[in-house]
Amino acid sequence: MMEDRILLAHGSGGKVSHRLIDDLFMKAFTDPTLNRQDDAAVVEGGARIAFTTDSYVVKPIFFPGGDIGKLAVCGTVNDLAMSGATPKYISAAFIIEEGFPFTDLKTIVDSMAKTAEAAGVAIVTGDTKVVERGGADQIFINTAGVGILPGHAEVSASNISPGDAVILSGSIGDHGIAVMSTREGLSFRTAIESDCAPLNGLVAALFESGASVKALRDPTRGGLAGTLNEFAAQSGVSLNVDETAVPIKAQVNGACEMLGLDPYHVANEGKVVAVVAADDAEKAVAAMRTNEYGREAAIIGAASEGKPRVYVKTMVGTTRILDMLIGEQLPRIC
Amino acid sequence: MMEDRILLAHGSGGKVSHRLIDDLFMKAFTDPTLNRQDDAAVVEGGARIAFTTDSYVVKPIFFPGGDIGKLAVCGTVNDLAMSGATPKYISAAFIIEEGFPFTDLKTIVDSMAKTAEAAGVAIVTGDTKVVERGGADQIFINTAGVGILPGHAEVSASNISPGDAVILSGSIGDHGIAVMSTREGLSFRTAIESDCAPLNGLVAALFESGASVKALRDPTRGGLAGTLNEFAAQSGVSLNVDETAVPIKAQVNGACEMLGLDPYHVANEGKVVAVVAADDAEKAVAAMRTNEYGREAAIIGAASEGKPRVYVKTMVGTTRILDMLIGEQLPRIC
Repeated sequence: MMEDRILLAHGSGGKVSHRLIDDLFMKAFTDPTLNRQDDAAVVEGGARIAFTTDSYVVKPIFFPGGDIGKLAVCGTVNDLAMSGATPKYISAAFIIEEGFPFTDLKTIVDSMAKTAEAAGVAIVTGDTKVVERGGADQIFINTAGVGILPGHAEVSASNISPGDAVILSGSIGDHGIAVMSTREGLSFRTAIESDCAPLNGLVAALFESGASVKALRDPTRGGLAGTLNEFAAQSGVSLNVDETAVPIKAQVNGACEMLGLDPYHVANEGKVVAVVAADDAEKAVAAMRTNEYGREAAIIGAASEGKPRVYVKTMVGTTRILDMLIGEQLPRIC
Repeated sequence: MMEDRILLAHGSGGKVSHRLIDDLFMKAFTDPTLNRQDDAAVVEGGARIAFTTDSYVVKPIFFPGGDIGKLAVCGTVNDLAMSGATPKYISAAFIIEEGFPFTDLKTIVDSMAKTAEAAGVAIVTGDTKVVERGGADQIFINTAGVGILPGHAEVSASNISPGDAVILSGSIGDHGIAVMSTREGLSFRTAIESDCAPLNGLVAALFESGASVKALRDPTRGGLAGTLNEFAAQSGVSLNVDETAVPIKAQVNGACEMLGLDPYHVANEGKVVAVVAADDAEKAVAAMRTNEYGREAAIIGAASEGKPRVYVKTMVGTTRILDMLIGEQLPRIC
């Protein structure tokens, strides 16, 4: 049954979020493109274009390795890249609390411009709303994005077959821990920086390798566990992950232990999970390692026939089921 | 000089808003498409497509004649239509305060779906963020939109020439007064309903008439005065408006008098200002009147050589300069 009121868990990227999407939005907005539930909508426009949106409510708005502006550009660039599209155009819509320091807005806007330039996308349209003091917490940014789909791109979370290889581009949990460690009320501080980065170049390198790419997703809210469970569910396969192959920084592991978190559930903003045909896996990894954001790319597992579940072989040789987060881990991570 | 902090006036659509856009955003995001400052970005994508975004923070979220969801779909459909595009695809991104009633969210989402269907657009992608209690005021919605530009469409606020006719589709001030009259703290209540409506059909009828359409804009924040001043400034012409030709409902006039507002500054959400070649004006008006949202369409003035200003000939025969709003009239009208 649905809850009466919106809970923080409804924004978590976990099970409660999925229920909200399935029970409310997918029922109300019955469009076949929306129904695919990929990261960006692919719409006809002469050429095929991809279209996506995300709002950013991260708190604090400045954190090691980035800020809400950089995040807002990277997040939408990455959603387009994950659909196989070449990101081209970005919108920028601000909801700002009255009294917000202008210098902070300038820093954020400059960060967006710099990130857009680095990613090779143009910010072409925008909007600004201001609400009274207390009407919003500092600043929220929505970015929507449009990308062009080249002929080769036919990636979807529902395309995975038994035997396919699962590749991860680098260490997990960096963004979530960077944000959490600076958030008020948490007294420790790690040296971890957010991995926030535009991944379109990395994805382009992967496609240029000629590998048969089945599915792509950036494991943001809900973490690696969320992405793998979505893949398993939408393709109807088991995914088997080797824990020893998944890079986790020592400081991230330490912070997760202190906070009682599973790093597989912690958000990333500069990582990609790519599923490719088994025969192409080595070539895909080699191509990804040529990009600055894929230096640590590695095969972390494979798909097999079976229940749509994710199994992790632990360092001690046992196997655990890696489930999706139920509700909210910590809100406002992106 | 720029202010240190964001003021409500920065979101008003008036002069302070324009300064924020010019001094901050246009300097940071130096894209030639963005620089045109039309309602939607026109981007290349095989076919030419239009791309726009708007966040909606209206308070109260339910008001006579509509709700935040209907407004969010109409507003973005209308921005696309004003660029001459046929609206096709909409995104829907929600920022929701923890504790928001689920039934209200359902009402809003259903309203969006119904409005999208009526407008003939598909909601193809979305996002949901939830912030903690007090982190946002109930619910904010961002919609971005993509439309296809037919060959004939070359409309821009900078295309107006001396002699062109200015057409208004109907009465002004209805949306703003409907929202203000229900807002907490204002004790009167009018029978006025918001004019919130999708205008793509009306614009299509105008184009089908074969009239040479120079500029189109929906006079939302900043009202009719804002739109006319933008037209005058961007085209470098004077605009001369005949007050007796501008329809204003008696209740709207009465409410404006009570509140000390000029109806020319009050927001509309279902009206269009169209500038067409003088010879096509009658045919354009006739075509607009065939659409349910253009029954009261009328020529209200004309462009002439002169300073980029808006002059209103009043009912008593005098002429006044109609200026843009300086700051915020009442915040959160859309």
